[in-house]
Amino acid sequence: MASVTAIEEQMYELVERMYPLCRSITGDGVRATLAIVGEYIPLDVHEVPTGTQVLDWTVPQEWNIRDAYIADASGRRVVDFAESSLHVLGYSVPVSATMPLSELRAHLHTLPDRPKWVPYRTSYYKPDWGFCLAQETLDALPDGEYQVRVDSTLEDGHLTYAEHVVPGQVPDEVIVSCHVCHPSLANDNLAGIAVATYLARALVKHTPYYTYRFIFAPGTIGAITWLARNKERVEHVKHGLVLACAGDRGDLTYKRSRRGDAEIDRVLRHVLSTSERPHQVKEFTPYGYDERQYCSPGFDLGVGSLTRTPYAGYPEYHTSADNLDFVSPEAMADTLAVCREAFAVLDRNRRYLNQSPYGEPQLGRRGLYDALGGRSDTKQAQMAMLWVLNLSDGEHSLLDVAERSGLPFDTVADAADALHGAGLVKA
Amino acid sequence: MASVTAIEEQMYELVERMYPLCRSITGDGVRATLAIVGEYIPLDVHEVPTGTQVLDWTVPQEWNIRDAYIADASGRRVVDFAESSLHVLGYSVPVSATMPLSELRAHLHTLPDRPKWVPYRTSYYKPDWGFCLAQETLDALPDGEYQVRVDSTLEDGHLTYAEHVVPGQVPDEVIVSCHVCHPSLANDNLAGIAVATYLARALVKHTPYYTYRFIFAPGTIGAITWLARNKERVEHVKHGLVLACAGDRGDLTYKRSRRGDAEIDRVLRHVLSTSERPHQVKEFTPYGYDERQYCSPGFDLGVGSLTRTPYAGYPEYHTSADNLDFVSPEAMADTLAVCREAFAVLDRNRRYLNQSPYGEPQLGRRGLYDALGGRSDTKQAQMAMLWVLNLSDGEHSLLDVAERSGLPFDTVADAADALHGAGLVKA
Amino acid sequence: MASVTAIEEQMYELVERMYPLCRSITGDGVRATLAIVGEYIPLDVHEVPTGTQVLDWTVPQEWNIRDAYIADASGRRVVDFAESSLHVLGYSVPVSATMPLSELRAHLHTLPDRPKWVPYRTSYYKPDWGFCLAQETLDALPDGEYQVRVDSTLEDGHLTYAEHVVPGQVPDEVIVSCHVCHPSLANDNLAGIAVATYLARALVKHTPYYTYRFIFAPGTIGAITWLARNKERVEHVKHGLVLACAGDRGDLTYKRSRRGDAEIDRVLRHVLSTSERPHQVKEFTPYGYDERQYCSPGFDLGVGSLTRTPYAGYPEYHTSADNLDFVSPEAMADTLAVCREAFAVLDRNRRYLNQSPYGEPQLGRRGLYDALGGRSDTKQAQMAMLWVLNLSDGEHSLLDVAERSGLPFDTVADAADALHGAGLVKA
Repeated sequence: MASVTAIEEQMYELVERMYPLCRSITGDGVRATLAIVGEYIPLDVHEVPTGTQVLDWTVPQEWNIRDAYIADASGRRVVDFAESSLHVLGYSVPVSATMPLSELRAHLHTLPDRPKWVPYRTSYYKPDWGFCLAQETLDALPDGEYQVRVDSTLEDGHLTYAEHVVPGQVPDEVIVSCHVCHPSLANDNLAGIAVATYLARALVKHTPYYTYRFIFAPGTIGAITWLARNKERVEHVKHGLVLACAGDRGDLTYKRSRRGDAEIDRVLRHVLSTSERPHQVKEFTPYGYDERQYCSPGFDLGVGSLTRTPYAGYPEYHTSADNLDFVSPEAMADTLAVCREAFAVLDRNRRYLNQSPYGEPQLGRRGLYDALGGRSDTKQAQMAMLWVLNLSDGEHSLLDVAERSGLPFDTVADAADALHGAGLVKA
Repeated sequence: MASVTAIEEQMYELVERMYPLCRSITGDGVRATLAIVGEYIPLDVHEVPTGTQVLDWTVPQEWNIRDAYIADASGRRVVDFAESSLHVLGYSVPVSATMPLSELRAHLHTLPDRPKWVPYRTSYYKPDWGFCLAQETLDALPDGEYQVRVDSTLEDGHLTYAEHVVPGQVPDEVIVSCHVCHPSLANDNLAGIAVATYLARALVKHTPYYTYRFIFAPGTIGAITWLARNKERVEHVKHGLVLACAGDRGDLTYKRSRRGDAEIDRVLRHVLSTSERPHQVKEFTPYGYDERQYCSPGFDLGVGSLTRTPYAGYPEYHTSADNLDFVSPEAMADTLAVCREAFAVLDRNRRYLNQSPYGEPQLGRRGLYDALGGRSDTKQAQMAMLWVLNLSDGEHSLLDVAERSGLPFDTVADAADALHGAGLVKA
Repeated sequence: MASVTAIEEQMYELVERMYPLCRSITGDGVRATLAIVGEYIPLDVHEVPTGTQVLDWTVPQEWNIRDAYIADASGRRVVDFAESSLHVLGYSVPVSATMPLSELRAHLHTLPDRPKWVPYRTSYYKPDWGFCLAQETLDALPDGEYQVRVDSTLEDGHLTYAEHVVPGQVPDEVIVSCHVCHPSLANDNLAGIAVATYLARALVKHTPYYTYRFIFAPGTIGAITWLARNKERVEHVKHGLVLACAGDRGDLTYKRSRRGDAEIDRVLRHVLSTSERPHQVKEFTPYGYDERQYCSPGFDLGVGSLTRTPYAGYPEYHTSADNLDFVSPEAMADTLAVCREAFAVLDRNRRYLNQSPYGEPQLGRRGLYDALGGRSDTKQAQMAMLWVLNLSDGEHSLLDVAERSGLPFDTVADAADALHGAGLVKA
């Protein structure tokens, strides 16, 4: 296995490779992105035709773009899509025209408060065209005629998403979902894609208990499409995590599922609070990333969301400042580590039933307890066995035991394994 | 509609008009009080005969009084009912006698700790007579013979109470109950009667959702009589508020119903805590005003109590110092404002059912969502729609949504109306 | 009845009498201890044969010991059982040998951190022999040959435990359980035995509501034996208390039952928190004394544990420093007082049903309420009646009433008696 440092660097390189591509909710940018991810983990890529009904929505026309710019009278490109995919309003319809700046302004998007940054804007469902640029750039444009051109196509085609499955011991599933629709924004969500990719690579090394399904899909419409096409599978989805904003230097933030106390919520809270990491745990809100869809009241899945600085919580959010400098290899590695720890707990968390529930069973004759009595420094492993025995009434999970006892989860799970080996508890 | 200032003044004038009357649990003082209130809002006045069985109680004889005094040897009235209705022990039997001060003392009630104030005392159910006076007055009386006279009648008659109903869209009822049995005490409860009266006038302007029933009845026996005569109606009483001590300058205090988390409790807590007002919310106790009866375990109605300084919480309580100076127009207006805000919330609070619960419905194509994507300053109205959709699973009310989302209740209720208009939620 | 001071002294004398005996989980030391206790309260002594199956365990062979020592080459006893029963490893098999110190060391137990103290050690279920001694003693031993002798027997015999029953008005039982297996350790558990003994003497003076059963049994195997032999009786055990470490000068500590909110838990918390005593209330853990067995998940009895400084919570724990100086008559008297207060509450705690639940019943005509109205200083006894009436809906106990009202439990219970006498509540 590659060293941790190597993985950090590999994740960062993956982000660098995906960064220039112009992604949107459909189109070749998404396909190219999935092709890169497919070099790291095998992907099943799904193409869903325009017009397909998905829940309350309809798959829109496919958008592709070759070029876009604003040129001044001299022909100099003052705003150029070739420089950054952010410069064009997402889903801009084709345009080729010359107009005075005064008329052009209605199609220009800037951030007056952040004059050097280019905003990220889209118009998926209302036909429109536009450019995003720095306020400084706009301020420097003299009045006069400008040539504007968006060389895009908006035609019947497909919505593209991909899945990667790590088979487990049981068909019950854990989903890990990342949005892949944003253009050149590094933290939102190339870092999430990179962490998910390396999480999948780590999980496959030992057959996990659960089956883990990674979903790489455009935001909102992609998750809705996946849900619409997987209505039966959803019953097998026991837990899930939406991964986003996984690479900035802020503290980790876990946002609970709609249920608030789903097992994934308890696992993440446990892992974060027993680690030394500064972190936040937030209540569910029906806004943010695709937890909105997984946690809609009809599905109400146990799906939380893990980010570093959360959705819209940093000024660089949805701007050109969410660039390659904004994410760090160390932050991605830290996010990956928490995911691995959390899934390690989730994977071992069970409810057992004490087979000898009347009084304590005699652990000593089974070699599970010290022969010398009277000492006050009972070993943690023995304490863990007493806790597991006492709480294994079918109502308490090993995580419950860990939390009530204050013992490390792994010690508790090891105790359960020992008791299971001795026939004293049954799964 | 009259200006707020005008209403303040009108409420205060109403208190002034009622103040001199000698009210008790029966008799013409109650009738005269209800006749004044009846000039502001139409009242149904009920007369219940002496001897009527009401729950565990019996309607007592009716008490009326024309005159009462203590006169010294020179014939000078040293204590005189004509000066204040507080001077006579409530329900005093008739007496006409001459006796030495030493013998008279057993019938005199004072407040040694507050030597200038006259206490309020009654003896409804044990035949007795007496006078209430300032300790200073008593101290100044020389020994000697005094003439005492109570010109009262205690005879079979009636207990009087009144109702005013503001019809709503549904037969489910909200009751607002005020005691009308106290003599010349301004805060307890003339201010409550005045606030209730102007609350009724405000509610009738727009047909409310609930039917609002105002009950003006003597304390304890009156509420018990109303409950005894309205056993079927009680099933329609969904919420209620006992109004008392509504005019002093202290902070507002809400006392929860016996249930503790009835909808009225949650509404008052919400309105008080989201306002800028200093206030207190107290747990139920089986003491105080007529919430004691409405919240007896057999009825257990969702009836709380709103006061300013609560029952027995101020030194002036049940003394002559609870006079017209003790209450202020501004305090009554503030109590009225909170009642109106609370009933506005109660009236709009519903549980809806999301008709499109699988994923988010596409709000954009219904004109309910901005077309431009990518912005991080989503409008409150849109956030409110997402919250209502997410929580409209039949278990959460709009008040739940407001409290979980932190959004203003009205914004949430407006969002529910918009979604209802689009057919996305059903009541 | 003896004065409190007399009882303090009597409990301390009882501890002194039991202190020198060599107790273990079986054998004549236990019998001699029970014989002493039997002089204070009548005991039913049970003898259970070696080999009897008790739950998951088997009653072991009986261990008795006459003498044990280590003697140096000159024949001088350097470690001598006659000086303290702690000097021999509990359940040591017989040995008679001469060996060099280097070989003997494997059988010696010391406390290097506490060089003057002798540890308490046992080996009940693995045949072994050994000596416990002060580190200082060991350090002073020159190399050379030593004569070691343990004159013990380990043979088929019996496990001994005893019961004392204080009959109550109902067959439902409260158990009070003390372990009697420790050798010369004063706080752990001779103080517990002494407090239990005098608690039994106090309870019998007035026939209690519950039947109180005192169990004096060796730790773990004794409680398991009692449970195995009383499977039907266990259904009648409604509450219980394990008494241990009852005499040190630390604060009282109550450890909750596994249920956490059993009635005994609420009673102890109430009594401790309304007293002026500094104290702790701790959550259940499956370690400590015989609450481990009573609170195993199959039984899950409402049995808590009362100690002063808890299990293993003081350095003297399980050492020769837990001696007669370590316990104080005042501490034992204080523990006894809390037990008596707690059982007084437990014994009166009932759920009543208000027979007049619609409105307040008219207490005045039943002589339960003051005739003079208007006063704001309502008597506590009347407030208690209103609280009992309001909460006597079958769901609230008198302890609930006391806690919600803030009134003393006895005032509440007296009010319930008065209401019961008037036919207004039914048990």
